[in-house]
Amino acid sequence: MGAKIALFAFFMFFALCSATPTKPYTPCKNLVLYFHDVLYNGENAANATSAIVAAPQGANLTKLAPQFHFGNIAVFDDPITLDNKFHSNPVGRAQGFYIYDTKNTFTAWLGFTFVLNSTEHQGSITFAGADPILQKSRDISVTGGTGDFFMHRGIATIMTDAFEGEVYFRLRVDIKFYECW
Amino acid sequence: MGAKIALFAFFMFFALCSATPTKPYTPCKNLVLYFHDVLYNGENAANATSAIVAAPQGANLTKLAPQFHFGNIAVFDDPITLDNKFHSNPVGRAQGFYIYDTKNTFTAWLGFTFVLNSTEHQGSITFAGADPILQKSRDISVTGGTGDFFMHRGIATIMTDAFEGEVYFRLRVDIKFYECW
Amino acid sequence: MGAKIALFAFFMFFALCSATPTKPYTPCKNLVLYFHDVLYNGENAANATSAIVAAPQGANLTKLAPQFHFGNIAVFDDPITLDNKFHSNPVGRAQGFYIYDTKNTFTAWLGFTFVLNSTEHQGSITFAGADPILQKSRDISVTGGTGDFFMHRGIATIMTDAFEGEVYFRLRVDIKFYECW
Repeated sequence: MGAKIALFAFFMFFALCSATPTKPYTPCKNLVLYFHDVLYNGENAANATSAIVAAPQGANLTKLAPQFHFGNIAVFDDPITLDNKFHSNPVGRAQGFYIYDTKNTFTAWLGFTFVLNSTEHQGSITFAGADPILQKSRDISVTGGTGDFFMHRGIATIMTDAFEGEVYFRLRVDIKFYECW
Repeated sequence: MGAKIALFAFFMFFALCSATPTKPYTPCKNLVLYFHDVLYNGENAANATSAIVAAPQGANLTKLAPQFHFGNIAVFDDPITLDNKFHSNPVGRAQGFYIYDTKNTFTAWLGFTFVLNSTEHQGSITFAGADPILQKSRDISVTGGTGDFFMHRGIATIMTDAFEGEVYFRLRVDIKFYECW
Repeated sequence: MGAKIALFAFFMFFALCSATPTKPYTPCKNLVLYFHDVLYNGENAANATSAIVAAPQGANLTKLAPQFHFGNIAVFDDPITLDNKFHSNPVGRAQGFYIYDTKNTFTAWLGFTFVLNSTEHQGSITFAGADPILQKSRDISVTGGTGDFFMHRGIATIMTDAFEGEVYFRLRVDIKFYECW
Protein backbone atom coordinates (compact mmCIF):
# COMPACT_ATOMS: atom_id res chain seq x y z
CA MET A 1 0.00 0.00 0.00
CA GLY A 2 2.78 2.37 0.95
CA ALA A 3 4.66 1.24 -2.12
CA LYS A 4 1.67 2.03 -4.32
CA ILE A 5 1.36 5.49 -2.87
CA ALA A 6 5.08 5.92 -3.29
CA LEU A 7 4.78 4.94 -6.96
CA PHE A 8 1.80 7.22 -7.38
CA ALA A 9 3.81 10.00 -5.75
CA PHE A 10 6.67 9.12 -8.07
CA PHE A 11 4.66 9.48 -11.25
CA MET A 12 2.77 12.46 -9.94
CA PHE A 13 6.00 14.27 -9.36
CA PHE A 14 7.55 13.00 -12.52
CA ALA A 15 4.66 14.61 -14.33
CA LEU A 16 5.03 17.84 -12.37
CA CYS A 17 8.78 18.07 -12.62
CA SER A 18 9.13 17.02 -16.22
CA ALA A 19 6.51 19.58 -17.11
CA THR A 20 8.76 22.37 -15.89
CA PRO A 21 11.44 22.37 -18.60
CA THR A 22 8.78 21.98 -21.29
CA LYS A 23 7.49 25.49 -20.82
CA PRO A 24 3.82 26.25 -21.44
CA TYR A 25 2.80 27.24 -24.94
CA THR A 26 -0.37 29.02 -23.96
CA PRO A 27 0.27 32.63 -22.97
CA CYS A 28 0.36 33.36 -19.25
CA LYS A 29 -0.78 36.89 -20.09
CA ASN A 30 -2.27 38.51 -23.18
CA LEU A 31 -2.75 42.14 -24.16
CA VAL A 32 -4.15 43.71 -27.31
CA LEU A 33 -3.20 47.33 -27.87
CA TYR A 34 -3.08 49.82 -30.73
CA PHE A 35 -0.60 52.56 -31.44
CA HIS A 36 -0.77 55.45 -33.85
CA ASP A 37 2.10 56.98 -35.76
CA VAL A 38 1.93 60.37 -37.47
CA LEU A 39 5.17 61.01 -39.35
CA TYR A 40 6.48 64.55 -39.65
CA ASN A 41 6.47 65.66 -43.30
CA GLY A 42 7.52 69.29 -42.95
CA GLU A 43 3.98 70.60 -42.56
CA ASN A 44 2.34 68.72 -39.69
CA ALA A 45 4.56 69.68 -36.75
CA ALA A 46 1.63 70.11 -34.38
CA ASN A 47 0.23 66.62 -34.92
CA ALA A 48 3.33 64.60 -35.76
CA THR A 49 4.32 61.90 -33.26
CA SER A 50 7.42 60.75 -35.15
CA ALA A 51 10.18 62.19 -37.28
CA ILE A 52 12.76 61.02 -39.78
CA VAL A 53 16.16 61.64 -38.19
CA ALA A 54 18.49 59.74 -40.51
CA ALA A 55 18.45 59.12 -44.23
CA PRO A 56 20.74 57.70 -46.89
CA GLN A 57 22.91 59.91 -49.06
CA GLY A 58 20.80 62.32 -51.15
CA ALA A 59 17.59 61.97 -49.17
CA ASN A 60 16.18 64.52 -46.71
CA LEU A 61 14.34 64.47 -43.39
CA THR A 62 10.86 65.52 -44.48
CA LYS A 63 10.24 62.88 -47.14
CA LEU A 64 10.79 59.15 -46.91
CA ALA A 65 13.68 57.99 -49.07
CA PRO A 66 13.30 56.35 -52.49
CA GLN A 67 14.01 52.61 -52.81
CA PHE A 68 11.37 51.57 -50.27
CA HIS A 69 12.67 54.13 -47.77
CA PHE A 70 15.86 52.09 -47.32
CA GLY A 71 18.09 53.81 -44.80
CA ASN A 72 15.52 55.99 -43.06
CA ILE A 73 15.46 55.97 -39.28
CA ALA A 74 12.39 57.42 -37.59
CA VAL A 75 12.05 58.21 -33.90
CA PHE A 76 8.58 58.00 -32.39
CA ASP A 77 6.51 58.75 -29.32
CA ASP A 78 3.11 57.38 -30.28
CA PRO A 79 -0.09 57.19 -28.23
CA ILE A 80 -1.28 53.70 -27.26
CA THR A 81 -5.01 53.05 -27.13
CA LEU A 82 -7.20 50.13 -26.13
CA ASP A 83 -9.24 50.34 -29.33
CA ASN A 84 -8.48 51.47 -32.87
CA LYS A 85 -9.55 55.10 -32.41
CA PHE A 86 -6.81 57.71 -32.61
CA HIS A 87 -8.68 60.00 -30.22
CA SER A 88 -9.39 57.40 -27.54
CA ASN A 89 -7.86 58.10 -24.16
CA PRO A 90 -4.25 56.89 -24.37
CA VAL A 91 -3.14 54.24 -21.86
CA GLY A 92 0.53 54.87 -22.53
CA ARG A 93 3.14 55.75 -25.12
CA ALA A 94 5.02 53.62 -27.64
CA GLN A 95 8.55 55.04 -27.70
CA GLY A 96 11.54 54.07 -29.80
CA PHE A 97 12.58 53.89 -33.42
CA TYR A 98 12.08 52.07 -36.69
CA ILE A 99 14.51 51.62 -39.53
CA TYR A 100 13.54 50.93 -43.11
CA ASP A 101 16.10 48.32 -44.05
CA THR A 102 15.40 46.87 -47.48
CA LYS A 103 15.87 48.30 -50.96
CA ASN A 104 13.40 46.08 -52.83
CA THR A 105 10.41 45.80 -50.51
CA PHE A 106 9.00 47.36 -47.34
CA THR A 107 10.60 45.95 -44.24
CA ALA A 108 11.61 47.61 -41.00
CA TRP A 109 13.62 46.88 -37.89
CA LEU A 110 11.91 47.93 -34.69
CA GLY A 111 13.30 48.76 -31.28
CA PHE A 112 10.70 50.25 -28.98
CA THR A 113 9.01 50.15 -25.60
CA PHE A 114 5.39 50.39 -24.50
CA VAL A 115 5.35 52.64 -21.45
CA LEU A 116 1.96 51.89 -19.90
CA ASN A 117 0.49 54.20 -17.34
CA SER A 118 -3.17 53.52 -16.65
CA THR A 119 -5.34 52.23 -13.83
CA GLU A 120 -4.99 48.78 -15.34
CA HIS A 121 -1.27 48.60 -16.17
CA GLN A 122 1.88 50.27 -14.85
CA GLY A 123 5.14 49.25 -16.40
CA SER A 124 7.08 48.84 -19.60
CA ILE A 125 7.31 46.22 -22.34
CA THR A 126 10.28 46.22 -24.72
CA PHE A 127 10.18 44.86 -28.28
CA ALA A 128 12.92 44.17 -30.83
CA GLY A 129 13.00 42.57 -34.22
CA ALA A 130 12.32 42.52 -37.91
CA ASP A 131 8.99 43.70 -39.26
CA PRO A 132 8.15 42.52 -42.79
CA ILE A 133 5.59 45.28 -43.12
CA LEU A 134 3.67 43.95 -46.11
CA GLN A 135 2.73 40.69 -44.41
CA LYS A 136 -0.71 40.86 -42.90
CA SER A 137 0.49 39.56 -39.57
CA ARG A 138 4.09 39.29 -38.34
CA ASP A 139 5.76 38.29 -35.08
CA ILE A 140 8.49 40.13 -33.21
CA SER A 141 10.16 39.35 -29.91
CA VAL A 142 9.21 40.82 -26.55
CA THR A 143 12.61 40.87 -24.90
CA GLY A 144 11.83 42.26 -21.47
CA GLY A 145 9.56 44.18 -19.17
CA THR A 146 9.43 46.14 -15.94
CA GLY A 147 6.77 47.00 -13.34
CA ASP A 148 3.66 44.88 -13.92
CA PHE A 149 5.67 43.16 -16.66
CA PHE A 150 8.72 42.46 -14.51
CA MET A 151 11.03 40.05 -16.37
CA HIS A 152 8.32 39.07 -18.85
CA ARG A 153 9.14 37.65 -22.27
CA GLY A 154 6.94 36.79 -25.17
CA ILE A 155 5.91 37.28 -28.77
CA ALA A 156 4.01 40.22 -30.24
CA THR A 157 1.92 39.78 -33.35
CA ILE A 158 1.75 43.04 -35.28
CA MET A 159 -0.90 43.93 -37.83
CA THR A 160 -1.20 47.13 -39.85
CA ASP A 161 -4.70 48.13 -38.87
CA ALA A 162 -4.85 51.22 -41.08
CA PHE A 163 -2.65 53.65 -42.97
CA GLU A 164 -3.09 56.89 -44.86
CA GLY A 165 -0.45 57.61 -47.46
CA GLU A 166 2.95 57.85 -45.85
CA VAL A 167 1.89 60.02 -42.95
CA TYR A 168 -0.37 57.99 -40.68
CA PHE A 169 -0.35 54.36 -39.74
CA ARG A 170 -1.97 52.42 -36.95
CA LEU A 171 -0.66 49.11 -35.67
CA ARG A 172 -2.55 46.49 -33.71
CA VAL A 173 -0.22 44.62 -31.36
CA ASP A 174 -1.31 41.34 -29.85
CA ILE A 175 1.17 40.71 -27.04
CA LYS A 176 1.40 37.14 -25.78
CA PHE A 177 3.63 36.64 -22.76
CA TYR A 178 4.97 33.12 -22.23
CA GLU A 179 7.19 34.01 -19.29
CA CYS A 180 5.30 36.00 -16.67
CA TRP A 181 7.04 35.71 -13.28
CA MET B 1 4.68 4.12 7.96
CA GLY B 2 5.82 3.77 4.35
CA ALA B 3 2.67 5.55 3.31
CA LYS B 4 3.41 8.44 5.64
CA ILE B 5 6.92 8.79 4.29
CA ALA B 6 5.49 8.59 0.80
CA LEU B 7 3.07 11.38 1.60
CA PHE B 8 5.83 13.37 3.21
CA ALA B 9 7.93 12.81 0.10
CA PHE B 10 4.91 13.86 -1.96
CA PHE B 11 4.48 17.19 -0.24
CA MET B 12 8.19 17.75 0.01
CA PHE B 13 8.51 17.39 -3.73
CA PHE B 14 5.37 19.31 -4.39
CA ALA B 15 6.97 22.19 -2.53
CA LEU B 16 10.25 21.77 -4.38
CA CYS B 17 8.76 21.33 -7.81
CA SER B 18 6.10 23.97 -7.58
CA ALA B 19 8.76 26.39 -6.43
CA THR B 20 10.57 26.00 -9.72
CA PRO B 21 8.17 27.76 -12.08
CA THR B 22 7.65 30.55 -9.55
CA LYS B 23 11.09 31.98 -10.15
CA PRO B 24 12.91 33.73 -7.32
CA TYR B 25 12.28 37.42 -6.80
CA THR B 26 15.46 38.16 -4.95
CA PRO B 27 18.37 38.85 -7.31
CA CYS B 28 20.79 35.99 -7.86
CA LYS B 29 23.45 38.61 -8.59
CA ASN B 30 23.67 42.35 -8.00
CA LEU B 31 26.05 44.99 -9.36
CA VAL B 32 26.18 48.73 -8.80
CA LEU B 33 28.15 50.68 -11.42
CA TYR B 34 28.45 54.23 -12.65
CA PHE B 35 29.02 55.55 -16.12
CA HIS B 36 29.97 58.98 -17.33
CA ASP B 37 28.84 60.66 -20.53
CA VAL B 38 30.52 63.73 -22.00
CA LEU B 39 28.61 64.86 -25.07
CA TYR B 40 30.48 66.47 -27.96
CA ASN B 41 29.40 70.10 -28.38
CA GLY B 42 31.80 71.23 -31.09
CA GLU B 43 34.51 72.35 -28.69
CA ASN B 44 35.32 69.40 -26.41
CA ALA B 45 36.59 66.84 -28.91
CA ALA B 46 39.41 65.69 -26.63
CA ASN B 47 37.18 64.84 -23.68
CA ALA B 48 33.91 63.91 -25.35
CA THR B 49 32.80 60.29 -24.96
CA SER B 50 29.63 60.66 -27.03
CA ALA B 51 28.39 62.48 -30.08
CA ILE B 52 25.10 63.45 -31.66
CA VAL B 53 24.91 61.61 -34.97
CA ALA B 54 21.30 62.16 -35.99
CA ALA B 55 18.93 65.06 -35.55
CA PRO B 56 15.49 66.12 -36.77
CA GLN B 57 15.06 68.52 -39.68
CA GLY B 58 16.65 71.91 -38.97
CA ALA B 59 18.83 70.82 -36.05
CA ASN B 60 22.58 70.21 -36.16
CA LEU B 61 25.08 67.80 -34.64
CA THR B 62 26.79 70.03 -32.08
CA LYS B 63 23.74 71.21 -30.17
CA LEU B 64 20.87 69.16 -28.80
CA ALA B 65 17.64 69.80 -30.70
CA PRO B 66 14.81 72.03 -29.47
CA GLN B 67 11.59 70.40 -28.21
CA PHE B 68 13.30 68.38 -25.49
CA HIS B 69 15.93 67.12 -27.97
CA PHE B 70 13.27 65.04 -29.74
CA GLY B 71 14.86 63.17 -32.62
CA ASN B 72 18.47 63.30 -31.49
CA ILE B 73 20.47 60.08 -31.54
CA ALA B 74 23.75 60.03 -29.63
CA VAL B 75 26.41 57.31 -29.85
CA PHE B 76 28.54 56.75 -26.76
CA ASP B 77 31.59 54.95 -25.43
CA ASP B 78 31.57 55.93 -21.76
CA PRO B 79 33.88 54.84 -18.95
CA ILE B 80 32.32 52.65 -16.24
CA THR B 81 33.54 53.12 -12.67
CA LEU B 82 32.85 51.43 -9.35
CA ASP B 83 32.22 54.73 -7.60
CA ASN B 84 30.89 58.10 -8.71
CA LYS B 85 34.25 59.64 -9.58
CA PHE B 86 34.90 60.39 -13.24
CA HIS B 87 38.64 59.85 -12.83
CA SER B 88 38.42 56.51 -11.00
CA ASN B 89 40.02 53.59 -12.76
CA PRO B 90 37.44 52.37 -15.31
CA VAL B 91 36.33 48.74 -15.04
CA GLY B 92 34.84 48.75 -18.51
CA ARG B 93 33.01 50.75 -21.15
CA ALA B 94 29.31 51.48 -21.66
CA GLN B 95 28.80 51.37 -25.42
CA GLY B 96 25.70 52.02 -27.48
CA PHE B 97 23.23 54.78 -28.18
CA TYR B 98 20.40 56.84 -26.76
CA ILE B 99 17.54 58.49 -28.57
CA TYR B 100 15.59 61.46 -27.27
CA ASP B 101 12.07 60.43 -28.19
CA THR B 102 9.52 62.87 -26.76
CA LYS B 103 8.59 66.41 -27.77
CA ASN B 104 7.05 67.55 -24.48
CA THR B 105 9.35 66.13 -21.79
CA PHE B 106 12.75 64.48 -21.45
CA THR B 107 12.63 60.79 -22.24
CA ALA B 108 15.08 58.56 -24.02
CA TRP B 109 15.30 55.10 -25.51
CA LEU B 110 18.48 53.24 -24.64
CA GLY B 111 20.26 50.38 -26.36
CA PHE B 112 23.69 49.72 -24.90
CA THR B 113 26.09 47.21 -23.48
CA PHE B 114 28.41 47.21 -20.49
CA VAL B 115 31.68 45.66 -21.65
CA LEU B 116 33.40 44.78 -18.38
CA ASN B 117 37.07 44.00 -18.31
CA SER B 118 38.51 43.95 -14.80
CA THR B 119 39.96 41.44 -12.39
CA GLU B 120 36.48 41.05 -10.94
CA HIS B 121 34.31 40.82 -14.06
CA GLN B 122 34.85 39.73 -17.65
CA GLY B 123 31.89 39.82 -19.95
CA SER B 124 29.08 41.91 -21.33
CA ILE B 125 25.62 42.97 -20.15
CA THR B 126 23.11 44.31 -22.67
CA PHE B 127 20.31 46.75 -21.79
CA ALA B 128 17.27 47.97 -23.77
CA GLY B 129 14.30 50.10 -22.96
CA ALA B 130 12.65 53.39 -22.22
CA ASP B 131 14.27 55.88 -19.86
CA PRO B 132 11.92 58.53 -18.45
CA ILE B 133 14.90 60.71 -17.58
CA LEU B 134 13.20 63.08 -15.16
CA GLN B 135 12.11 60.34 -12.79
CA LYS B 136 14.52 59.94 -9.92
CA SER B 137 14.76 56.18 -10.44
CA ARG B 138 13.63 54.19 -13.45
CA ASP B 139 13.87 50.55 -14.52
CA ILE B 140 15.00 49.17 -17.85
CA SER B 141 15.42 45.59 -19.03
CA VAL B 142 18.65 43.63 -19.02
CA THR B 143 18.08 41.44 -22.06
CA GLY B 144 21.21 39.33 -22.16
CA GLY B 145 24.80 38.79 -21.19
CA THR B 146 27.98 36.97 -22.14
CA GLY B 147 31.11 35.79 -20.33
CA ASP B 148 30.60 36.05 -16.57
CA PHE B 149 27.04 37.10 -17.38
CA PHE B 150 26.31 34.22 -19.74
CA MET B 151 22.58 34.13 -20.52
CA HIS B 152 21.74 36.44 -17.62
CA ARG B 153 18.56 38.49 -17.53
CA GLY B 154 17.39 41.10 -15.09
CA ILE B 155 16.33 44.64 -14.34
CA ALA B 156 18.55 47.71 -14.10
CA THR B 157 17.51 50.65 -11.97
CA ILE B 158 18.99 53.85 -13.37
CA MET B 159 19.47 57.06 -11.42
CA THR B 160 20.90 60.34 -12.69
CA ASP B 161 23.68 60.80 -10.16
CA ALA B 162 24.87 64.15 -11.49
CA PHE B 163 24.72 66.38 -14.53
CA GLU B 164 26.31 69.60 -15.71
CA GLY B 165 24.34 71.52 -18.28
CA GLU B 166 23.86 69.46 -21.39
CA VAL B 167 27.43 68.26 -21.63
CA TYR B 168 28.09 65.90 -18.73
CA PHE B 169 25.90 63.40 -16.98
CA ARG B 170 26.63 60.50 -14.71
CA LEU B 171 24.30 57.57 -14.27
CA ARG B 172 24.21 55.12 -11.38
CA VAL B 173 23.06 51.69 -12.55
CA ASP B 174 21.89 49.12 -10.03
CA ILE B 175 21.80 45.86 -11.97
CA LYS B 176 19.73 43.08 -10.45
CA PHE B 177 19.96 39.75 -12.22
CA TYR B 178 17.07 37.35 -11.66
CA GLU B 179 18.28 34.73 -14.12
CA CYS B 180 21.91 33.85 -13.55
CA TRP B 181 22.71 30.42 -15.00
CA MET C 1 9.86 -1.77 1.59
CA GLY C 2 7.35 0.95 0.85
CA ALA C 3 9.51 3.34 2.86
CA LYS C 4 12.55 2.45 0.76
CA ILE C 5 10.68 3.08 -2.43
CA ALA C 6 9.41 6.34 -0.98
CA LEU C 7 12.95 7.38 -0.14
CA PHE C 8 14.12 6.31 -3.58
CA ALA C 9 11.29 8.34 -5.06
CA PHE C 10 12.33 11.23 -2.83
CA PHE C 11 15.92 11.28 -4.02
CA MET C 12 14.92 10.57 -7.58
CA PHE C 13 12.69 13.59 -7.60
CA PHE C 14 15.12 15.67 -5.68
CA ALA C 15 17.60 15.00 -8.46
CA LEU C 16 15.04 15.76 -11.15
CA CYS C 17 13.66 18.89 -9.55
CA SER C 18 16.89 20.36 -8.38
CA ALA C 19 18.29 19.85 -11.86
CA THR C 20 15.72 22.22 -13.33
CA PRO C 21 17.04 25.57 -12.08
CA THR C 22 20.57 24.62 -13.08
CA LYS C 23 19.87 25.03 -16.77
CA PRO C 24 21.84 23.00 -19.31
CA TYR C 25 25.09 24.46 -20.61
CA THR C 26 25.20 22.47 -23.81
CA PRO C 27 23.22 24.15 -26.58
CA CYS C 28 19.77 22.73 -27.25
CA LYS C 29 20.17 23.93 -30.85
CA ASN C 30 23.11 25.11 -32.92
CA LEU C 31 23.31 26.94 -36.24
CA VAL C 32 26.31 28.17 -38.21
CA LEU C 33 25.53 30.84 -40.79
CA TYR C 34 27.38 33.48 -42.78
CA PHE C 35 26.29 36.93 -43.81
CA HIS C 36 27.78 39.32 -46.30
CA ASP C 37 27.83 43.10 -46.04
CA VAL C 38 28.59 45.40 -48.98
CA LEU C 39 28.67 49.00 -47.77
CA TYR C 40 27.54 51.77 -50.12
CA ASN C 41 30.46 54.07 -50.95
CA GLY C 42 28.83 56.35 -53.51
CA GLU C 43 29.72 54.17 -56.50
CA ASN C 44 28.39 50.68 -55.83
CA ALA C 45 24.66 51.32 -55.58
CA ALA C 46 23.75 48.20 -57.53
CA ASN C 47 25.65 45.80 -55.27
CA ALA C 48 25.52 47.56 -51.92
CA THR C 49 23.54 45.80 -49.18
CA SER C 50 24.11 48.47 -46.52
CA ALA C 51 24.43 52.23 -46.27
CA ILE C 52 25.75 54.79 -43.83
CA VAL C 53 22.76 56.80 -42.66
CA ALA C 54 24.20 58.77 -39.76
CA ALA C 55 27.60 60.30 -39.13
CA PRO C 56 29.23 62.63 -36.64
CA GLN C 57 29.67 66.34 -37.36
CA GLY C 58 31.84 66.94 -40.43
CA ALA C 59 31.60 63.43 -41.89
CA ASN C 60 29.47 62.36 -44.84
CA LEU C 61 27.40 59.35 -45.88
CA THR C 62 29.62 57.81 -48.54
CA LYS C 63 32.82 57.44 -46.53
CA LEU C 64 33.25 56.00 -43.06
CA ALA C 65 34.14 58.66 -40.49
CA PRO C 66 37.67 59.31 -39.17
CA GLN C 67 38.52 58.23 -35.60
CA PHE C 68 37.70 54.56 -36.18
CA HIS C 69 34.36 55.49 -37.78
CA PHE C 70 33.05 56.66 -34.39
CA GLY C 71 29.48 57.86 -34.76
CA ASN C 72 28.59 56.12 -38.01
CA ILE C 73 25.34 54.20 -38.15
CA ALA C 74 24.86 51.78 -41.03
CA VAL C 75 21.60 50.08 -41.99
CA PHE C 76 21.86 46.68 -43.66
CA ASP C 77 19.91 44.00 -45.46
CA ASP C 78 22.54 41.32 -46.04
CA PRO C 79 22.19 37.88 -47.60
CA ILE C 80 22.67 34.91 -45.26
CA THR C 81 24.34 31.81 -46.64
CA LEU C 82 25.10 28.34 -45.32
CA ASP C 83 28.73 28.52 -46.46
CA ASN C 84 31.21 31.35 -46.92
CA LYS C 85 30.42 32.02 -50.58
CA PHE C 86 28.79 35.34 -51.41
CA HIS C 87 26.98 33.85 -54.38
CA SER C 88 25.58 30.81 -52.62
CA ASN C 89 21.82 30.58 -52.52
CA PRO C 90 20.71 32.79 -49.60
CA VAL C 91 18.65 31.13 -46.86
CA GLY C 92 17.52 34.44 -45.47
CA ARG C 93 18.41 38.05 -44.77
CA ALA C 94 20.28 39.69 -41.91
CA GLN C 95 18.48 42.98 -41.28
CA GLY C 96 19.23 45.76 -38.84
CA PHE C 97 21.98 48.23 -38.03
CA TYR C 98 25.45 48.61 -36.65
CA ILE C 99 26.97 51.60 -34.91
CA TYR C 100 30.68 52.33 -34.71
CA ASP C 101 30.97 53.46 -31.13
CA THR C 102 34.62 53.97 -30.15
CA LYS C 103 37.10 56.68 -31.05
CA ASN C 104 40.33 54.78 -30.36
CA THR C 105 39.68 51.29 -31.75
CA PHE C 106 37.15 49.43 -33.91
CA THR C 107 34.09 48.42 -31.96
CA ALA C 108 30.46 48.32 -32.96
CA TRP C 109 27.05 47.94 -31.38
CA LEU C 110 24.75 45.60 -33.26
CA GLY C 111 20.99 45.32 -33.35
CA PHE C 112 19.78 42.96 -36.04
CA THR C 113 17.59 40.01 -36.94
CA PHE C 114 18.15 36.93 -39.06
CA VAL C 115 14.99 36.42 -41.09
CA LEU C 116 15.30 32.83 -42.25
CA ASN C 117 13.16 31.55 -45.06
CA SER C 118 14.32 28.20 -46.39
CA THR C 119 13.10 24.65 -46.51
CA GLU C 120 15.06 24.02 -43.34
CA HIS C 121 14.22 27.08 -41.23
CA GLN C 122 11.30 29.52 -41.06
CA GLY C 123 11.49 32.21 -38.45
CA SER C 124 13.52 35.01 -36.99
CA ILE C 125 16.43 35.31 -34.55
CA THR C 126 17.19 38.68 -32.94
CA PHE C 127 20.66 39.72 -31.73
CA ALA C 128 21.85 42.68 -29.64
CA GLY C 129 25.12 43.69 -28.11
CA ALA C 130 28.64 44.96 -28.32
CA ASP C 131 30.99 43.72 -31.03
CA PRO C 132 34.70 44.30 -30.34
CA ILE C 133 35.46 43.86 -34.02
CA LEU C 134 39.21 43.30 -33.80
CA GLN C 135 38.90 40.26 -31.54
CA LYS C 136 39.04 37.06 -33.52
CA SER C 137 35.91 35.70 -31.89
CA ARG C 138 33.36 37.62 -29.83
CA ASP C 139 30.03 36.78 -28.22
CA ILE C 140 26.78 38.71 -28.43
CA SER C 141 23.36 37.95 -27.00
CA VAL C 142 20.52 36.29 -28.83
CA THR C 143 17.59 38.00 -27.17
CA GLY C 144 14.62 36.38 -28.85
CA GLY C 145 13.16 34.46 -31.74
CA THR C 146 9.95 33.69 -33.58
CA GLY C 147 8.63 30.86 -35.76
CA ASP C 148 11.01 27.88 -35.56
CA PHE C 149 12.92 29.88 -32.98
CA PHE C 150 9.89 30.73 -30.84
CA MET C 151 11.05 32.25 -27.52
CA HIS C 152 14.62 31.02 -28.04
CA ARG C 153 17.55 32.66 -26.28
CA GLY C 154 21.26 32.05 -26.62
CA ILE C 155 24.70 33.30 -27.46
CA ALA C 156 26.13 34.00 -30.91
CA THR C 157 29.84 33.79 -31.52
CA ILE C 158 30.82 36.13 -34.34
CA MET C 159 33.99 35.84 -36.41
CA THR C 160 35.12 38.11 -39.22
CA ASP C 161 35.56 35.54 -41.93
CA ALA C 162 36.84 37.94 -44.58
CA PHE C 163 36.95 41.61 -45.46
CA GLU C 164 38.02 43.74 -48.40
CA GLY C 165 38.94 47.29 -47.56
CA GLU C 166 36.03 49.11 -46.03
CA VAL C 167 33.47 47.91 -48.55
CA TYR C 168 32.95 44.18 -48.03
CA PHE C 169 32.97 42.05 -44.95
CA ARG C 170 31.71 38.58 -44.22
CA LEU C 171 30.78 37.38 -40.76
CA ARG C 172 30.53 33.80 -39.57
CA VAL C 173 27.90 33.49 -36.85
CA ASP C 174 27.83 30.42 -34.64
CA ILE C 175 24.45 30.56 -32.89
CA LYS C 176 24.09 28.45 -29.77
CA PHE C 177 20.64 28.37 -28.27
CA TYR C 178 20.41 27.47 -24.59
CA GLU C 179 16.69 28.05 -24.29
CA CYS C 180 14.76 26.31 -27.02
CA TRP C 181 11.13 25.76 -25.98
